[in-house]
Amino acid sequence: MDTRNLASDRPLTGVTVLDFGQIYNGPYCGHLLAMAGARVIKVESPIGETLRNSTASSGEGYPFRALNGNKETITLNFKRPDGQRLLKEMVRHVDVLLENYRPGTMAKYGIGSEELMAINPRLIYASGTGYGQNGPHADYLAMDVTVQAMSGVVSVTGYEGDPPLKSGPAICDMLGGVHLYGAITSALYRRERTGLGAVLDIAMQDAVIPTLCSAIGAYYRTGGNPPRTGNHHQARAIAPYNIYETRDGHVAIICIREGHWRKLVAAMESPDLLHDELFANMEARSKNMDRTDAVVLDWTASRSTQEVFELCQLFGVPCSPVQTLSDVLSDRHLLARGMLKEVTDKSNRSMMLFGTPIQFEGVRPPDPTLPREIGQDNEAVYGELLGLRRESVDDYRRSGVL
Amino acid sequence: MDTRNLASDRPLTGVTVLDFGQIYNGPYCGHLLAMAGARVIKVESPIGETLRNSTASSGEGYPFRALNGNKETITLNFKRPDGQRLLKEMVRHVDVLLENYRPGTMAKYGIGSEELMAINPRLIYASGTGYGQNGPHADYLAMDVTVQAMSGVVSVTGYEGDPPLKSGPAICDMLGGVHLYGAITSALYRRERTGLGAVLDIAMQDAVIPTLCSAIGAYYRTGGNPPRTGNHHQARAIAPYNIYETRDGHVAIICIREGHWRKLVAAMESPDLLHDELFANMEARSKNMDRTDAVVLDWTASRSTQEVFELCQLFGVPCSPVQTLSDVLSDRHLLARGMLKEVTDKSNRSMMLFGTPIQFEGVRPPDPTLPREIGQDNEAVYGELLGLRRESVDDYRRSGVL
Repeated sequence: MDTRNLASDRPLTGVTVLDFGQIYNGPYCGHLLAMAGARVIKVESPIGETLRNSTASSGEGYPFRALNGNKETITLNFKRPDGQRLLKEMVRHVDVLLENYRPGTMAKYGIGSEELMAINPRLIYASGTGYGQNGPHADYLAMDVTVQAMSGVVSVTGYEGDPPLKSGPAICDMLGGVHLYGAITSALYRRERTGLGAVLDIAMQDAVIPTLCSAIGAYYRTGGNPPRTGNHHQARAIAPYNIYETRDGHVAIICIREGHWRKLVAAMESPDLLHDELFANMEARSKNMDRTDAVVLDWTASRSTQEVFELCQLFGVPCSPVQTLSDVLSDRHLLARGMLKEVTDKSNRSMMLFGTPIQFEGVRPPDPTLPREIGQDNEAVYGELLGLRRESVDDYRRSGVL
Repeated sequence: MDTRNLASDRPLTGVTVLDFGQIYNGPYCGHLLAMAGARVIKVESPIGETLRNSTASSGEGYPFRALNGNKETITLNFKRPDGQRLLKEMVRHVDVLLENYRPGTMAKYGIGSEELMAINPRLIYASGTGYGQNGPHADYLAMDVTVQAMSGVVSVTGYEGDPPLKSGPAICDMLGGVHLYGAITSALYRRERTGLGAVLDIAMQDAVIPTLCSAIGAYYRTGGNPPRTGNHHQARAIAPYNIYETRDGHVAIICIREGHWRKLVAAMESPDLLHDELFANMEARSKNMDRTDAVVLDWTASRSTQEVFELCQLFGVPCSPVQTLSDVLSDRHLLARGMLKEVTDKSNRSMMLFGTPIQFEGVRPPDPTLPREIGQDNEAVYGELLGLRRESVDDYRRSGVL
């Protein structure tokens, strides 16, 4: 009889993480680790992590809340010798330390990867940064929008002739964060096989480069920087491929194979299009992109988004509505999958937190929860891991070490 | 004396993967696995993977080349009973099978997770899809642009009053692919500890939701769908935060802390701004965003991108140039880190392939290579894993099984 509890099958059960993450990049990695079953201890300075205090995060601090639930919270001032000493004790008891400070920040205080690996050679010391730990740009200051600009994302978003545009979502932070997660789990696997710890160096810029695949293809095809393509394919080599207006919104439609076009023609009940040389094949439709878009728009504009969407699904054409945030936050599919979960805070305000994209069949991740107060687990964690008594924790707190 | 060869420390050395990936999502996962040291065997139908044959991929098939080097290549027609039989033999010898077909595709041919896990209970069966294996939208057709639309990304990109806009890069495909990688490495770790295989279910839509953190924050703050914000912060709560024109291009500048603003003021040599109530703090600058932008633009517009960038770095203000693709493909930092590597094809055309964002200190990933021809490793792989002789491989090829 299998008496294992479902939770014990979570992939990272038994793994303990010190999460020095701040803002989005590090904390998203910590979120994924926690949702995979690891014990994640969020470590903040005594004044709290930047995002906890950020007025700019707004929405009652939604981003902080979304990224830091399911973590224990402690404080530590590693600028103080006593703080450094406590950290050096702590790393004996943990598997992973993750941080996304500027390169060299922790080393400056004598608690960089070299010092900590010497104390615990099985430690996985995981750093996320904008540009990595080495190379000529390593010291550049980085935030999502500057990495979007540096990596080429901004230059390939927006319309031809318009200025360059950023992607709305925080893609560099989160791409960096999930690559950091993948690096940590890879290192945990290697450690099981070899006993070796690891020092990991994940750069947001590196992580975003592969998303430019189509754009780089267009660059090589045209032999130079291609113009921005708005909602069209980056190499203008697929048509239809666009966001089309409907009577009450917009839909995305893409025909990546000839069969998709035939199905769309059937859905549009315009069989004559199949015999029109303008649309004879992908090359012809791409060359005559405006005409192709016009026949599709002619069909979508007089119908509701829902009607276009349902017809496309029925006929087998890749299509989706352009959902607004309110659509997304009430999306029955995301709710059914547990990717969104409603919680209510102390002020009785409800909001949707997100779960984890990393789903194991038959394993239920923890429900997302709201973050704990700053330092709420100081006594419990320092007591358990270092044997500190309540009075010592209080002393350290009063003297600014915790 | 440590006699280990560096390569033997690659995290996934010894792991064998059957990569049924197609287009971007699955193949990017396979790319990351290969670069982490796994043996990745790309499995294509006898007519070749969609992207290998895609005229739309263009640029001499750049995306196919960028995502499928460093893999052995075999063919297998799993629609044929003999093909199914061969696959069932193969899964005895591998650790991971990854695929990104529509849900149910492999099960339809009797080679779904259930059948294959029964043969090899240690198998990690990893599926990447647009919307996941279950839930009311599981069967929707998905491509990067439709998932961008469905997940809300399109609704939060572009300018207020303009139609919704997609992000230029293929963010959903790649976010899905790297989460799939993280799920596989998590499952490998769990398998070392428990002996259990796993069935993994990674949806591109799930994977992109966390990137909307700021936008959802703005939604909760304003109590409804916020207008699109162009190059501004999603919650319009940070200023300066924009792409600014320079004499010869554009730069991104963001001041996330008060200190950044003070440093920018110093770089601009306009100390009076510190005493101007319009810009007194983050809240004031956000409220007076147009005025804030105007003073920054006034400074950037008369200078070169390089000059603005260097001054910002000197004074400690997060800033970067808006790099074009040609800038990115010759970026000295990406080259120094090995994230870009030049290769030359048989026709003597050179191009930049990308390496891996997953970097272990002291471990050198393989250099990226161009993909092998379709079925090029049939004899070697089927010979080694199943003991098939050359004649059998030839017979299977002639009869359309390989």
